Amino acid sequence: MDAISVIRTKRDRGRLSDEQIDWVIDAYTRGAVADEQMSALAMAILLNGMDRAEIARWTAAMIASGERMDFSRLTRPTADKHSTGGVGDKITLPLAPLVAACGAAVPQLSGRGLGHTGGTLDKLESIPGWRATLSNEEMLSVLDEVGAVVCAAGDGLAPADKKLYALRDVTGTVEAIPLIASSIMSKKIAEGTGSLVLDVKVGSGAFMKSLEDARELAATMVGLGTDHGVRTVALLTDMSVPLGLTAGNALEVRESVEVLAGGGPADVVELTLALAREMLDAAGLTDADPAKALADGSAMDVWRRMIRAQGGDPDAALPVARETHVVTAPASGVLTGLDAYAVGLAAWRLGAGRARKEDAVQAGAGVELHAKPGATVVQGAPLLTLHTDTPELFAYALEALDGAFTIAAAGSGFSAGRLILDRIA
Amino acid sequence: MDAISVIRTKRDRGRLSDEQIDWVIDAYTRGAVADEQMSALAMAILLNGMDRAEIARWTAAMIASGERMDFSRLTRPTADKHSTGGVGDKITLPLAPLVAACGAAVPQLSGRGLGHTGGTLDKLESIPGWRATLSNEEMLSVLDEVGAVVCAAGDGLAPADKKLYALRDVTGTVEAIPLIASSIMSKKIAEGTGSLVLDVKVGSGAFMKSLEDARELAATMVGLGTDHGVRTVALLTDMSVPLGLTAGNALEVRESVEVLAGGGPADVVELTLALAREMLDAAGLTDADPAKALADGSAMDVWRRMIRAQGGDPDAALPVARETHVVTAPASGVLTGLDAYAVGLAAWRLGAGRARKEDAVQAGAGVELHAKPGATVVQGAPLLTLHTDTPELFAYALEALDGAFTIAAAGSGFSAGRLILDRIA
Repeated sequence: MDAISVIRTKRDRGRLSDEQIDWVIDAYTRGAVADEQMSALAMAILLNGMDRAEIARWTAAMIASGERMDFSRLTRPTADKHSTGGVGDKITLPLAPLVAACGAAVPQLSGRGLGHTGGTLDKLESIPGWRATLSNEEMLSVLDEVGAVVCAAGDGLAPADKKLYALRDVTGTVEAIPLIASSIMSKKIAEGTGSLVLDVKVGSGAFMKSLEDARELAATMVGLGTDHGVRTVALLTDMSVPLGLTAGNALEVRESVEVLAGGGPADVVELTLALAREMLDAAGLTDADPAKALADGSAMDVWRRMIRAQGGDPDAALPVARETHVVTAPASGVLTGLDAYAVGLAAWRLGAGRARKEDAVQAGAGVELHAKPGATVVQGAPLLTLHTDTPELFAYALEALDGAFTIAAAGSGFSAGRLILDRIA
Repeated sequence: MDAISVIRTKRDRGRLSDEQIDWVIDAYTRGAVADEQMSALAMAILLNGMDRAEIARWTAAMIASGERMDFSRLTRPTADKHSTGGVGDKITLPLAPLVAACGAAVPQLSGRGLGHTGGTLDKLESIPGWRATLSNEEMLSVLDEVGAVVCAAGDGLAPADKKLYALRDVTGTVEAIPLIASSIMSKKIAEGTGSLVLDVKVGSGAFMKSLEDARELAATMVGLGTDHGVRTVALLTDMSVPLGLTAGNALEVRESVEVLAGGGPADVVELTLALAREMLDAAGLTDADPAKALADGSAMDVWRRMIRAQGGDPDAALPVARETHVVTAPASGVLTGLDAYAVGLAAWRLGAGRARKEDAVQAGAGVELHAKPGATVVQGAPLLTLHTDTPELFAYALEALDGAFTIAAAGSGFSAGRLILDRIA
């Protein structure tokens, strides 16, 4: 077995055999297949595809590259959620304590942001004292005692995926559905959750720009989960407009706490409840009532215990950016469009995100929205507020927002699209 | 400009702009674009292609990565030949002195063998004392005094191609027509020859297995040469059967000397004369008579001076392998097939070629043929002789020859294919 023959097979539109897949993933993890060989194979996979059996084997080989976790000592059923990433997507923050308050154990092994989509760990790190890194034992004990834990995935989980993800990021091979699906699912299956709800984002602010691509990705992941004994469901949700009214680390924590307090933007509440119901159903807790757990404060109680269990102070003031800049409406009328990608890029440019893995993020930076599509706006009234510690970045962020919103004459008609576009199980 | 955006352009079936091509070749040569990025780009080029303008710019950028040679001080017109590589292809050895004997200056900057096709420098190095490496000044002075020189290309010539070629070799991206064409032509154009004849091989023993692919490669290279002011012609020649009766280093030198002495196998003589006529025509020496120069010994005189000028002794005995093994005909009849790739692979396995660049080759190893397709063979009579210094390799070489020849009943009809299949100018 050698790397060139594996590359040639896929290059020439052949099927990779089980032996080829097992060998190439293992050899790449060990360093016996070089980065330049794996990137050529990744490009061939992106352009020539893999069938369902190849994707399943590829995923199994990535799981086998590392350790598997075991949640069997927990008394509650486990329920996990994964979002493919979007702008203002803070749903994990209210969702994990909410579902735990309804009786499930919620292990959220999360990542950091890279590019224009934020990372859950970056958001939580804006809470004074909170730390993302736990040992497996600590993670299990928080999960057991609190019911929910959000922390960094350990290095032992699917190491082949860690190496391959970093390679894809610099070689233009991120956007391959077989590789996205196997990357997400290898980690979730190795983690050992009993059920999984996928939030597959569609639109300008997401990886998947079209509903067809999103459906294919969702169906691939649901198939992989089901084949590995994980009850898996996917919701396809809109990401053409930012979720909620904030994009940025501390800004999104503040909005999440508002949701846990029974308030918050309607779309964030709607999606949080929809995902909670799916997770509870998948975990077999069909009688639980997440709306009640939000209203009666029990979700907020779990949130406070969850933050404290990782050293955070839920009562501490959140960091605020040193400078703000208000963008006003250039005309009166109805806001008909607000592009998610542009808002995500602006937040990233203001310091909320990072260009390279080793960069730091600004806790207070980001974009705050004062109106969402469908709202009536008045010329000169605030439309967005930009937040940053480095005001010289305002011009750079404003450039990203050029053409990002459209205002139509009042009465010209606007109908909002649906937030939840499809469900695949 | 960044590597990922260049990769994405080609991945998504776009045209690379002149600026993208210039940047990526320069940055790769400098090390600012990583090997894993260039291999992903090479795979995207292999699968999605490049148009004529992109190939021309890519070639120009590879030329610009290094120095250009200057033959203008020579009084004779320059004529060069390049073969895309085949089994038993020793044509450069008789051809260079023959064309020089007819009045042209023949600069043959050659390579070493990798894989199943032999390398011209490896063959000449079997002559005691001969050395492949000359400075540019030495090279020009041999060319001036002798009329022909065969030596290693200097490191300064198209360094981007050297780096990219080594990368393609390990990443399954050798077989991309735009990359093969630009690799060959960047070196030939940088070398500064006035005219160039391409021998594009077609068949099992060649890179190009089909006539269509070979035609496309030939037309691409002729276009590139012409656009850069090099008079360029291509012959498409058969490589389904080995050329001549030998494959291996010293074995091929011996056969080449037979041709220069007025003998040798008919196919080697035919192709040597056809290429010589094309080279002399392209160089404007339309009155020269290469058949006469072979017959009257003037080509042999140039050969002896050419070998001596690089330290070799043309009268020294050539190395002979320590062991031989004869393969006999399993039946009587007409030999109807003798697969070039199988013979090349057997010669390589016997020690005539190398698996890695740093390996040494055996001067005496190789395969000697006693019959070519069309010949009548008698059961038990010798068909092939295998030569090696390491007899434990015989079994490995014989495995490569399994099914390599076919013998039909006498009188069942056999018509040999043509050696020269097409001409593209």
